[in-house]
Amino acid sequence: MKAVFIDLSGVLYIGREAIPGAREAVARLQASGLVIRFVTNTSRMTRRQILESLRGLGFEIHDEQLVTAPSAARDWFAERGLRPWCLVHKAIREEFEALDQSNPNAVLIGDAADDFTYAHLNRAFELCLEGAPLVGIGRNRYFRLDGHFLLDAGPFIRAIEYAADVEAVIVGKPSKTFFEQVLRDAGCSAGETMMIGDDVEGDIEGALKAGLQACLVRTGKYRPGDEHRIDGDFRVEDSIVEAVDYLLGS
Amino acid sequence: MKAVFIDLSGVLYIGREAIPGAREAVARLQASGLVIRFVTNTSRMTRRQILESLRGLGFEIHDEQLVTAPSAARDWFAERGLRPWCLVHKAIREEFEALDQSNPNAVLIGDAADDFTYAHLNRAFELCLEGAPLVGIGRNRYFRLDGHFLLDAGPFIRAIEYAADVEAVIVGKPSKTFFEQVLRDAGCSAGETMMIGDDVEGDIEGALKAGLQACLVRTGKYRPGDEHRIDGDFRVEDSIVEAVDYLLGS
Repeated sequence: MKAVFIDLSGVLYIGREAIPGAREAVARLQASGLVIRFVTNTSRMTRRQILESLRGLGFEIHDEQLVTAPSAARDWFAERGLRPWCLVHKAIREEFEALDQSNPNAVLIGDAADDFTYAHLNRAFELCLEGAPLVGIGRNRYFRLDGHFLLDAGPFIRAIEYAADVEAVIVGKPSKTFFEQVLRDAGCSAGETMMIGDDVEGDIEGALKAGLQACLVRTGKYRPGDEHRIDGDFRVEDSIVEAVDYLLGS
Repeated sequence: MKAVFIDLSGVLYIGREAIPGAREAVARLQASGLVIRFVTNTSRMTRRQILESLRGLGFEIHDEQLVTAPSAARDWFAERGLRPWCLVHKAIREEFEALDQSNPNAVLIGDAADDFTYAHLNRAFELCLEGAPLVGIGRNRYFRLDGHFLLDAGPFIRAIEYAADVEAVIVGKPSKTFFEQVLRDAGCSAGETMMIGDDVEGDIEGALKAGLQACLVRTGKYRPGDEHRIDGDFRVEDSIVEAVDYLLGS
């Protein structure tokens, strides 16, 4: 194995708490010489905030090691000269400031939290009904915060797809295009890379379909039985600690 | 033909306006001796309000001719002794007052309009994740009001189905069980009954699958090309007026 891609929420931390042993596991990886990318669909924090938050929790992470789905979304619109209407969390609106958002002709849906109102969803729907392409940040069903399971962007993307009878372009996991971008950036081939995540569809199934190896961890949003929800060969470990033990052969 | 089932919104009226000629068309049907049922998934008005509203617009309708999906939902929970958490429009909450809703062990989703908040959808999702059955009022994608297309209950039901990986029980159109209930109530067989509606899936496809004949009208939410979105033999008419002309052979 030459490279490892690591999901953030639920793998390194839950809410505002690092998972026991995760810091040391990441430090051992950083010292190992493996190429590392932290790959997240999180759309409640900017890149800068994610980096600060990880460092605040004691994780060693270099700027260029972080790959976020919102950045991939911004690039997608910019490359096509589209003007998106962004139904995203207020915390990450600044990531899209460089794009013209007047008179929108495209729609972006991320995890908008309390901004998922009936009025906002109707706005997204009407634009899609008029032909605006729909871009979704991931297809994640839910995540875990403060002991609660909370709806992620996926269900709302499905809702608009169903209402307007369209199919969303997905940026971030589990999109094969996204995994391939990260592989190119990391300079590694799929077969020599392992994805570690707690989301059996977004992280594990997505990685397998892109040809990577994968390891599901039983932390974060993991629920017993998740490993039987998808087909394919992948490892299952109790946490990032045991996953890193396996990778480093210790 | 011995019976006719008629959808309300988009067929008899749009918003607060009767469709031109619809009043007279209904009066001719009432005088014809055909068995008539007005069949609606509308979940923004109680039965009583629907009857008053139709009569206020000048339509002749008898109490027993109105069949609503929310009533079917209430019966579904009552028959099973379930305690639903009702994510429905505030206007129809009184329809569910007779049900015990404490410590809920089931979920109902109707067209809740502005009550479709992130917090409410999370509540529905968490209950379903814990195993509560999900009941949906129809699967309608959208409806038309004041020149806007607005999201109906269907997209939100899909969102919770996707998030919790469950399948909703649908009361109302297009559920075959629902059409069969209305046929029993009307005392008619499917083959001698025609459904008239503006929703090619909820009204027309649902009716055809239950063995009824069907007529799509080009009013309300109808959009050009809708008639090609489903398979099956059905009529298409400009409005309820021409549909009634056909039925009465005039």
